[in-house]
Amino acid sequence: MDHLRRIGQLRRRMTRAGLPGLLVTHLPDVRYLSGFTGSSAALAVTRRAARLFTDGRYTTQAAEEVASAKVQIVTGPPAVAAVQWLAVQSGVIFAGFDPVYTTVAEHARLRAALPTAHRRGFLSALPAPLVETLRLVKDEDELTVMIEAALLGCSLFEHVLGIIRPGIPEVEVAAELEHRARLLGAEGMSFDTIVASGPRSALPHGHATLARLPRRGFLTLDFGIILKGYCSDMTRTVHLGAPTAKERAAYHAVLEAQEAAVAAVTDGARCGDVDEAARGVLRKAGLADAFTHSTGHGVGLEIHESPRIGAGQATRLRSGMVVTIEPGVYFPGRFGIRIEDMVAVTRTGGQVLTPAPKALVEL
Amino acid sequence: MDHLRRIGQLRRRMTRAGLPGLLVTHLPDVRYLSGFTGSSAALAVTRRAARLFTDGRYTTQAAEEVASAKVQIVTGPPAVAAVQWLAVQSGVIFAGFDPVYTTVAEHARLRAALPTAHRRGFLSALPAPLVETLRLVKDEDELTVMIEAALLGCSLFEHVLGIIRPGIPEVEVAAELEHRARLLGAEGMSFDTIVASGPRSALPHGHATLARLPRRGFLTLDFGIILKGYCSDMTRTVHLGAPTAKERAAYHAVLEAQEAAVAAVTDGARCGDVDEAARGVLRKAGLADAFTHSTGHGVGLEIHESPRIGAGQATRLRSGMVVTIEPGVYFPGRFGIRIEDMVAVTRTGGQVLTPAPKALVEL
Repeated sequence: MDHLRRIGQLRRRMTRAGLPGLLVTHLPDVRYLSGFTGSSAALAVTRRAARLFTDGRYTTQAAEEVASAKVQIVTGPPAVAAVQWLAVQSGVIFAGFDPVYTTVAEHARLRAALPTAHRRGFLSALPAPLVETLRLVKDEDELTVMIEAALLGCSLFEHVLGIIRPGIPEVEVAAELEHRARLLGAEGMSFDTIVASGPRSALPHGHATLARLPRRGFLTLDFGIILKGYCSDMTRTVHLGAPTAKERAAYHAVLEAQEAAVAAVTDGARCGDVDEAARGVLRKAGLADAFTHSTGHGVGLEIHESPRIGAGQATRLRSGMVVTIEPGVYFPGRFGIRIEDMVAVTRTGGQVLTPAPKALVEL
Repeated sequence: MDHLRRIGQLRRRMTRAGLPGLLVTHLPDVRYLSGFTGSSAALAVTRRAARLFTDGRYTTQAAEEVASAKVQIVTGPPAVAAVQWLAVQSGVIFAGFDPVYTTVAEHARLRAALPTAHRRGFLSALPAPLVETLRLVKDEDELTVMIEAALLGCSLFEHVLGIIRPGIPEVEVAAELEHRARLLGAEGMSFDTIVASGPRSALPHGHATLARLPRRGFLTLDFGIILKGYCSDMTRTVHLGAPTAKERAAYHAVLEAQEAAVAAVTDGARCGDVDEAARGVLRKAGLADAFTHSTGHGVGLEIHESPRIGAGQATRLRSGMVVTIEPGVYFPGRFGIRIEDMVAVTRTGGQVLTPAPKALVEL
């Protein structure tokens, strides 16, 4: 990953925004700009210098990972050291901070740590995120890793199909999937694995439990892995035994909605229109009320990133963004269905990164 | 878990603090008070009522999980609905929020969502946390679950000892440990599993990689599971092949430091004194500089909770708290050692919840 280039891009945006200094505390942003993967750090960027502050646990790791900023090991909170450093840089008469990732308490602490003359006005809330905006559009290095992450995740689905049978607990499916992920080199899962069977499939976020798979009913698998820091995310819903006509019809409606939204992913498309592509299909099928969430979200170093693909969202997709497309329908106490792919926006349309079959699988 | 009793305790603290209303947005706090385990919620508490706000994905789940508050499904952000509800409750002339878990941006959004007359002064930053203070001391229901979580975690160590051998990748150890955790009913891991071998053991947070276990050298395993929402946390360091005299001496110093700190855990002990019990032993052994972090932290619904067991901390331990005791020494490029137990504070001293052997294991 070319972190120096990213800091260069950030500086151009800082210049355009008239910002002489920036405090970066959100760890995925810190990682994006510096490569540092530790759990405690702050990055300070000026037009001339960049400095990463972390604590003594990370001396070796920071030296290995960080090339785009000078590293300084501190004993107190890294963000405090970072603002104190910013305050003494020549030409830095104020510095931006991201109000979305700074708590009210942290802000008060940072202010209090500044020289008296700087307390009022030195720290300035960014009107719009700077680093997050850079992260929206993935560069080639990132796309390479994300394709690898998505394919690794995708291979897990086919693998666990082989062990799914009535009577085994949901957690066994999750365990097998996660074990396989580890052996294939995943650093971990990008969120708690969802394995929701029978009536539990109606819980959009039904994490794997000790409940046993039924002889007949849907089984939703929603999972993702982390590879080199990047998240994958996909969902497939399969059926144990033969589905009823109603279940089959609902599945096909969701599949049609999902494919319509994938087809709507183009460079320049409005997120709200992509959402409507899925929602419209389900509305026609009389299932609008059962689709209780938005169609998708950006994904990258974090499992949920901008943009949000929801009703009315005016943000436009751009080439290089990676989003999920995941409509679903839920009938509490009965069943639920969700189908999700990761899709990269390219100049020629949406490229599905999770090419596992979506036709209804009966096991 | 008796959530109604906890809301009763919270109300008594609100009365004492002269607080007519409280907004709770930190999800572990919401879970603690209501049992709700979803990923999007806010809880509003007044002296008479408690209401949980969440979105349509959680209609079924919230109905199943929440008994201590009335549930309201909303389409916008739950916290916005919660403050708007608080603003129209009779007698609620202002409401507290936790500045440690409210971002600057969220605070601005909540203010803007209030009726004009309420914008100034209705939302009041708590001078000290209320729910977190309740959570510090675990009730009997929690201790029962935490003992179960700690023992489950502990059993994993013995299990993976059986597969550790030179040449296998670190991730295989992590995969086996996590797979076993799942099959035993863990909902997941409480943090990214640390499997750090050879010189990588000098990284206090060395997550499992594809690096292969050496013929000779230390191997640090630091891991925890989540059971019914509660986290376990433990570390053992073992040696592959025969240790050098220096490695052996360092191991025994860390073990002595760890046992001294465990012995210092008593009802009423100052956290700083517990830290010093470990630090003093390592100082005498000439290893003070190699112990680069604090001795431990509270654990519960979150993997890192109050209190912090670090140098100079004046907080006193109280019966019912559960903390980790985890001194370590790190020699960059060479090796590292850490030994960690979970310890419950009882009226008669510290009770170790992770009773796996700590004598130096040579594999």
